Amino acid sequence: MDERWQRGRAVADRLDPGQTERIVAGLAGIAPDMARHAIAFAFGDILGRPGLALRDRQIATIAALTALGTAGPQLRLHIKGGLAAGLSRDEIVEVILQMAVYAGFPAALEGLAAAREVLGEAPGEA
Amino acid sequence: MDERWQRGRAVADRLDPGQTERIVAGLAGIAPDMARHAIAFAFGDILGRPGLALRDRQIATIAALTALGTAGPQLRLHIKGGLAAGLSRDEIVEVILQMAVYAGFPAALEGLAAAREVLGEAPGEA
Amino acid sequence: MDERWQRGRAVADRLDPGQTERIVAGLAGIAPDMARHAIAFAFGDILGRPGLALRDRQIATIAALTALGTAGPQLRLHIKGGLAAGLSRDEIVEVILQMAVYAGFPAALEGLAAAREVLGEAPGEA
Amino acid sequence: MDERWQRGRAVADRLDPGQTERIVAGLAGIAPDMARHAIAFAFGDILGRPGLALRDRQIATIAALTALGTAGPQLRLHIKGGLAAGLSRDEIVEVILQMAVYAGFPAALEGLAAAREVLGEAPGEA
Amino acid sequence: MDERWQRGRAVADRLDPGQTERIVAGLAGIAPDMARHAIAFAFGDILGRPGLALRDRQIATIAALTALGTAGPQLRLHIKGGLAAGLSRDEIVEVILQMAVYAGFPAALEGLAAAREVLGEAPGEA
Amino acid sequence: MDERWQRGRAVADRLDPGQTERIVAGLAGIAPDMARHAIAFAFGDILGRPGLALRDRQIATIAALTALGTAGPQLRLHIKGGLAAGLSRDEIVEVILQMAVYAGFPAALEGLAAAREVLGEAPGEA
Repeated sequence: MDERWQRGRAVADRLDPGQTERIVAGLAGIAPDMARHAIAFAFGDILGRPGLALRDRQIATIAALTALGTAGPQLRLHIKGGLAAGLSRDEIVEVILQMAVYAGFPAALEGLAAAREVLGEAPGEA
Repeated sequence: MDERWQRGRAVADRLDPGQTERIVAGLAGIAPDMARHAIAFAFGDILGRPGLALRDRQIATIAALTALGTAGPQLRLHIKGGLAAGLSRDEIVEVILQMAVYAGFPAALEGLAAAREVLGEAPGEA
Repeated sequence: MDERWQRGRAVADRLDPGQTERIVAGLAGIAPDMARHAIAFAFGDILGRPGLALRDRQIATIAALTALGTAGPQLRLHIKGGLAAGLSRDEIVEVILQMAVYAGFPAALEGLAAAREVLGEAPGEA
Repeated sequence: MDERWQRGRAVADRLDPGQTERIVAGLAGIAPDMARHAIAFAFGDILGRPGLALRDRQIATIAALTALGTAGPQLRLHIKGGLAAGLSRDEIVEVILQMAVYAGFPAALEGLAAAREVLGEAPGEA
Repeated sequence: MDERWQRGRAVADRLDPGQTERIVAGLAGIAPDMARHAIAFAFGDILGRPGLALRDRQIATIAALTALGTAGPQLRLHIKGGLAAGLSRDEIVEVILQMAVYAGFPAALEGLAAAREVLGEAPGEA
Repeated sequence: MDERWQRGRAVADRLDPGQTERIVAGLAGIAPDMARHAIAFAFGDILGRPGLALRDRQIATIAALTALGTAGPQLRLHIKGGLAAGLSRDEIVEVILQMAVYAGFPAALEGLAAAREVLGEAPGEA
């Protein structure tokens, strides 16, 4: 396993400990090479680039996945990754809520439902 | 609670009695302010505007949500709201079916599946 | 030319006089059969269906094309068709503006720019 | 039932034996005419056209549905149809995986999850 | 003009001096009320919320508009706003480039073309 | 330059002679590393994979870009690449036309307009 994989693995596991292994296992029976590309390219070549903090990258990803509205499981993983990268619960909620302006209320409401699943309900918020 | 909220509440509850309370409760634990914006802005400022009948606004919403294809729960709510605003079952089905032309057959077929869930099967149609 | 074509041609030309010929001419050099499908299927089989008034169908189409945001020329044609089907200038603007809620402000603003191109600026509105 | 229906029925049932009847039954209670359009227009007029092999048409459909990411049940049907039209398991997986480049990793990963459901895990691949 | 408008105006003009007046003028002839909603709701109620820095909000907006790929003029405005909110040229480019992973290479390449228009080519980068 | 780059360069230049240099030049002033990822990852790691013929990969790409409808310049490049990979003019038109079923008529019509720009009008077709 080369340097791109090592850098990607470090990013993936920082965002969600054990994520690399879960991606490898999840794709093993259908498209094993895809795991390599997800780790080496997505996490290694792109998320691992200098020039933008990992915390800021998670803002961008959570915003994009909420706006696109087509990949719920990926959004939930990146909400979890956002916490690991240093975003607060409130910051993540703000990013998703803001998508009401740029992608419409239904996109934001679906994103908030995903956030509630991952983050749970805040004590005292209700 | 101000005038924007009151106007929005009236529209939301006309489309689905008790909707305002359900929106408030649903968002309480994750983003309570979002309920205010959904009621005061979406239902109050926009759906409550004069210049287009509420029935016609539901046509627009059902069409858009079917075409986007990214927010099933919201589509089902607005199909219900369409009935409350005066659309017939047949008119709602026509709006969704028409999306085959503008957003493709899969979008229309997913929309019709949502419609069947909300409207049930018509007696004698099968 | 059969009955589906005749019905489609009547709808297409009611929405925009001469539209059938323009569609045929526009596609002649690249995909001539597509003109047949646009007229016979889209305008004949679907827009020509009973069960929803042509005016209401134009609401659905303008809403969907604004929300999708991917087909400016088609949106402009259907704004024109909306007027021909009996929608007022104000009603068309309301449909597009409402998309701010369901597809976000950028989609609505692009749609309003298209509307301004087709409808012109209203005297006295500035 | 006319010639367009017969041609569409042959294509639909070649892609998935019994598909025509299932489409008719599935839409009977909500929009029975839609079944006619799905068979006569989508399968008959378009997928049944000469000029592109049915196998190649399934590549196009699987790619588009993976990229759009809005119609999981339709994607699963067309993955099945891809096998029936002569694509190998590997070719289908390659089409979906390639969408990582054109529609992003989340779209490709959701598509691969659909493929695993339909195609099962390959023996010895894990 | 009320408090929501004042707060929105401050945010809009901080992101792009004179933006409020340009929005009002741009919409005057087609949908004058939309300017109020863009300023009071989008900039005032949402972008003006505490809980997430304006710089971070611009990351989310640039990411979402690049990923959606449907509103070039709005993307260009928000790239400009990103600079005003404290993002560096490099950080903006990183956000857009990252969208290759989440929305595909074409979306990222179109976004980079918009960035080049707004930011110009960096001296010495070629 | 490593093996991934060499493989990607071969694919990119087979699809459009000189494409590698044009991509490098186009991105030099805004995001020079993106050219590396486009060549090494998109063309090298993915389009250069065995398991699906390059001709078939162009079907998938043309279908996806037509369906998404958000990247006209990229679609035009890949229509050109489709010819280079061995698709006939008619096959390319069929792929785009078929998107009327899966992404709607406006997407297909915009795609056909792109095809006419790249392929020209066929002699004798008008």
